[in-house]
Amino acid sequence: MSARIRLLRADTQVRLLRADTQVRLLRADTQVRPSYGWNMPWNLTSTHAGPGDLALLVGLRHKHFIFPLIPGGTFHTHRGILRHDDLIGKPWGSQVFSHQGSPFFLLQPSLADILTDLPRHTQIMYPKDIGFILTNLSVGPGQRVLEAGTGSGSMTVALAYLVGPSGRVVSYEIRPEFQKLARKNLERLGLEARVELKLGDIRDGFSETDMDAMFLDVANPWDYIPQVRAALKPGGFYCSLLPTFNQVEQLLVTLRREGFAFIEVCELLLRYYKPEPSRLRPTDRMVAHTGYLIFGRRIEPRQDERARDLLEEQGGESETEKPGADGGQI
Amino acid sequence: MSARIRLLRADTQVRLLRADTQVRLLRADTQVRPSYGWNMPWNLTSTHAGPGDLALLVGLRHKHFIFPLIPGGTFHTHRGILRHDDLIGKPWGSQVFSHQGSPFFLLQPSLADILTDLPRHTQIMYPKDIGFILTNLSVGPGQRVLEAGTGSGSMTVALAYLVGPSGRVVSYEIRPEFQKLARKNLERLGLEARVELKLGDIRDGFSETDMDAMFLDVANPWDYIPQVRAALKPGGFYCSLLPTFNQVEQLLVTLRREGFAFIEVCELLLRYYKPEPSRLRPTDRMVAHTGYLIFGRRIEPRQDERARDLLEEQGGESETEKPGADGGQI
Amino acid sequence: MSARIRLLRADTQVRLLRADTQVRLLRADTQVRPSYGWNMPWNLTSTHAGPGDLALLVGLRHKHFIFPLIPGGTFHTHRGILRHDDLIGKPWGSQVFSHQGSPFFLLQPSLADILTDLPRHTQIMYPKDIGFILTNLSVGPGQRVLEAGTGSGSMTVALAYLVGPSGRVVSYEIRPEFQKLARKNLERLGLEARVELKLGDIRDGFSETDMDAMFLDVANPWDYIPQVRAALKPGGFYCSLLPTFNQVEQLLVTLRREGFAFIEVCELLLRYYKPEPSRLRPTDRMVAHTGYLIFGRRIEPRQDERARDLLEEQGGESETEKPGADGGQI
Amino acid sequence: MSARIRLLRADTQVRLLRADTQVRLLRADTQVRPSYGWNMPWNLTSTHAGPGDLALLVGLRHKHFIFPLIPGGTFHTHRGILRHDDLIGKPWGSQVFSHQGSPFFLLQPSLADILTDLPRHTQIMYPKDIGFILTNLSVGPGQRVLEAGTGSGSMTVALAYLVGPSGRVVSYEIRPEFQKLARKNLERLGLEARVELKLGDIRDGFSETDMDAMFLDVANPWDYIPQVRAALKPGGFYCSLLPTFNQVEQLLVTLRREGFAFIEVCELLLRYYKPEPSRLRPTDRMVAHTGYLIFGRRIEPRQDERARDLLEEQGGESETEKPGADGGQI
Repeated sequence: MSARIRLLRADTQVRLLRADTQVRLLRADTQVRPSYGWNMPWNLTSTHAGPGDLALLVGLRHKHFIFPLIPGGTFHTHRGILRHDDLIGKPWGSQVFSHQGSPFFLLQPSLADILTDLPRHTQIMYPKDIGFILTNLSVGPGQRVLEAGTGSGSMTVALAYLVGPSGRVVSYEIRPEFQKLARKNLERLGLEARVELKLGDIRDGFSETDMDAMFLDVANPWDYIPQVRAALKPGGFYCSLLPTFNQVEQLLVTLRREGFAFIEVCELLLRYYKPEPSRLRPTDRMVAHTGYLIFGRRIEPRQDERARDLLEEQGGESETEKPGADGGQI
Repeated sequence: MSARIRLLRADTQVRLLRADTQVRLLRADTQVRPSYGWNMPWNLTSTHAGPGDLALLVGLRHKHFIFPLIPGGTFHTHRGILRHDDLIGKPWGSQVFSHQGSPFFLLQPSLADILTDLPRHTQIMYPKDIGFILTNLSVGPGQRVLEAGTGSGSMTVALAYLVGPSGRVVSYEIRPEFQKLARKNLERLGLEARVELKLGDIRDGFSETDMDAMFLDVANPWDYIPQVRAALKPGGFYCSLLPTFNQVEQLLVTLRREGFAFIEVCELLLRYYKPEPSRLRPTDRMVAHTGYLIFGRRIEPRQDERARDLLEEQGGESETEKPGADGGQI
Repeated sequence: MSARIRLLRADTQVRLLRADTQVRLLRADTQVRPSYGWNMPWNLTSTHAGPGDLALLVGLRHKHFIFPLIPGGTFHTHRGILRHDDLIGKPWGSQVFSHQGSPFFLLQPSLADILTDLPRHTQIMYPKDIGFILTNLSVGPGQRVLEAGTGSGSMTVALAYLVGPSGRVVSYEIRPEFQKLARKNLERLGLEARVELKLGDIRDGFSETDMDAMFLDVANPWDYIPQVRAALKPGGFYCSLLPTFNQVEQLLVTLRREGFAFIEVCELLLRYYKPEPSRLRPTDRMVAHTGYLIFGRRIEPRQDERARDLLEEQGGESETEKPGADGGQI
Repeated sequence: MSARIRLLRADTQVRLLRADTQVRLLRADTQVRPSYGWNMPWNLTSTHAGPGDLALLVGLRHKHFIFPLIPGGTFHTHRGILRHDDLIGKPWGSQVFSHQGSPFFLLQPSLADILTDLPRHTQIMYPKDIGFILTNLSVGPGQRVLEAGTGSGSMTVALAYLVGPSGRVVSYEIRPEFQKLARKNLERLGLEARVELKLGDIRDGFSETDMDAMFLDVANPWDYIPQVRAALKPGGFYCSLLPTFNQVEQLLVTLRREGFAFIEVCELLLRYYKPEPSRLRPTDRMVAHTGYLIFGRRIEPRQDERARDLLEEQGGESETEKPGADGGQI
């Protein structure tokens, strides 16, 4: 789905609905989310749209809207009005129409929809990168994952979704307004109980230890690697995403020095095709770059000459410079 | 990690250890895995290697071995012998040495390590594709996911890991020997309780209904789309991975006819860099193609002229052929 | 250089300059191009801007203009006026300023600038594809190259430039208005003496035989392969560029049937980086697709069982279908 | 065509043919190439194989051989013997057979075949990069092009082919054994009259001035940019190809300082497809990296505040660092 999605903020919603439903909106909201876990608004397991469910409406020109279904509520678009009560009870995937007859699909938002859609102050993180990071960090139910900075909370949402109710996400942020937005985003999705948001400078270190994995999403990760190491468990997973080569260079030097190995640098290119069977071809343009992904694992190095080659092979130590090894072309 | 990883099969292990530890191996195995769920052998949350834990040893030349730690066991490589008792109790990430002094890292296998490593009869599925599929299908704790065919079970493992103990994976396979291997793979990881493996021809349909998502991994998915539709819930997520353009073409035609929309076709290219900070550059060669990913969602179409443009925009109906629209170049 | 380049058409130029220089423009034009070959307006070997030379002006916001330098002429932009006489005699690469003080670089247009810039009715052909096609067709001084359709003449220009005064380009087009534009484009560059433009339907075949190479740039090349074969010399080079998979499929079938081998299908992806040394990174977006390139060579097949494997290896005959060879995944 | 091509060296040829044809080979060689230019052994304009012509034989398993056709000669492969007299007179593209009946195609080698095939001490330069460089440097008939270092002469060959008999290539090399190989390669192709090979350290500068274009193929181009500038004409074209990011970074800094603008950094990815129409798909693996291409043009800068923004836009001056401009992510 496209970048044109917009997750309506609660306050926007209230404003939209002010005339007739504000009170009911708030009451309904209280009713439908009495406790987290068993009745999350972002619910991917139901078959029909229910009250309190987060819904995705997709209209013409790839316009997307994500908002909670509130009994008595109305949803206003420039293509007309839809009454929430007409949506509640419908099977997901249904075609619905505004009072002007403009068509929409009613859907549950996918994880990718949510990630693309969160209100943010920061650069978007793309599902292609998020999916690969999650798989490489082995994020799954029950794990304890550390993040910094929180940013707008889009990776926080993905982590919280995957660690499940038995897992734990701890996320640090230094800018209060970012943390505030991330908290709102988590609350809208009913994921806040799985996440601890902390405000502070990670230069002072993390209170956590033995965390299973860490996603360090800051512009200067090399300044915090000793702190990261102290917070990760032995063998724990590390990842950063960095837009420039120069940052990658600096981070690699530090990771090696600070006891990380299994260092990998890569990037993912996602190419879409026009889904037209008789004229199948890639789209004309694509996102050419989001960032370089750098992965590593905390190792327990010891000064042992026998392990040097192994360390070097795994990116944990620099190759001895072999002058001329590449025929003079570096 | 590399494709050279090998997950040692239980029988191999027994054979390797025959001389001294066979009996203890079996007994140990029984002891450490009394029930699945609370003590899975593939355990990503511990800090130190424990008895019964699945361990990853990485030696020189990127040689990888995954096997369970059995008290009293020994592990033989062509670079020497390691005693399991010397590994148990060590922090993950430790350097260990064979009796000949050859170095190894002792690690928990990541999800990506496991996926790359599973014994298989079939084509490998790459973590880059798996991560993106999982994110786009929104697979997470508590969901009910359908798969066909099971193959060697590598996607089955990923699905089972992510749906967690409260979720459910149902996977169909027509070839008994494939199902058998997949079952072994799931059992070695302690994930079998989350998965129902079914033997049969999906041409006859699935017994399940209202499944949240489906991964259809067969060479001719277009032959089973009505069956898939009947098994998916309204709005449910669909994905196939196909190596050739011709297959994509045929599948697109069928998905459109059978009530799917939000159809997307894409491919992911993963490019690794040599992690050498002073000579940063991509690797010389890369995997150029694994497959095209096709995503869609079950919709509830109704014959309503007002929705035609919307359907077309979402890949649910073919563009009207506009002859000459591209300046004579198609 | 960017797509924003515009090669000013002679008539535009005249209009721009109407007030003071129209007459001189025409006279100057006559003077400076007395014969083609020794004094081409598009001259890449001089060091200073001379009268009659084709010049490239690059201003702010990557605005580009290509036009001939006419003694007494003036050049009007929305950023002010430049007098041709102030440009003539300057070394190429100079900074020049409009009467308002807006800066421009004065340059010789490169082949890539010219190709990107030609007025056209058709899809642009990108320098990345053109360069690779020319190298694979071995186009160079003295060769005889066939083209159809001419389109706006951008490939024609590239071919004419490279075959030099001793070579020959013959280019067919069915639409008179396209040929007319191509002729204008060639004339502006002084390349028309190397090119024979023919109007007609190539379904009727080409009058030429024993041509060294052919670039067949039409939407349905499979309809003309016998004609192409008759026009090419034995062993001659063939190339088409096609945007969709479906076209490639159809063309491959025909090329094999009609006595072509050494068939290759490929595509080129060009990725730009922001040239900022302290923050080196790819641009955010890129052109994801221009077309698939299909190359082949005319061979002299004879029915000889001994050559079948060789033909198959070289794409001149279809692999025998080996059912199940790929593990059931096609 | 593949990297397995081998251009047989004259001495190898002699050794292969020693028993019966050595004397005739040498005599023939003298006869067929009496003077360069009108009778080049590498001749792309004939229709039939003639005496002295450079021929390409392609056999099973993509084995390629390039060698001159010598009346009376024989060609020995591990699949049998072919007599040159049986090849001479055949149309190019013919199937021919060894005395054992093993099939071969007889072809003129294309420019790409030659480039892929030249005996070399150095890294291969790929046709994809060569074609793009030639187009961007506007190399064509009549131009004067500078190169350093010569290496094995593969780019030298491409330049000499394209500038034609009226153009000129000057190529510097510091290692005598490289120059010797390059000279041999040029002579085998009959291109040596267009090229001046110079031995020396370019740190001392080039004797040439006002060259139209320069390809600087050394590992540390930043050390020679003032020398390059002195040799290029105003507005002249510059290109380097560098494998690592770190080199690009260093070169960019120097180019800006030394009066170059229109600086572009890019890379080309070439992806092949299996030419099987019923199972069309990319090849499994590809070359992921050859090098970054850096282009620029010599400009005549002058300290003029009015031109600063223009210089910056064209990569001729660094953007003012705007701290925080990227939202904290850099």
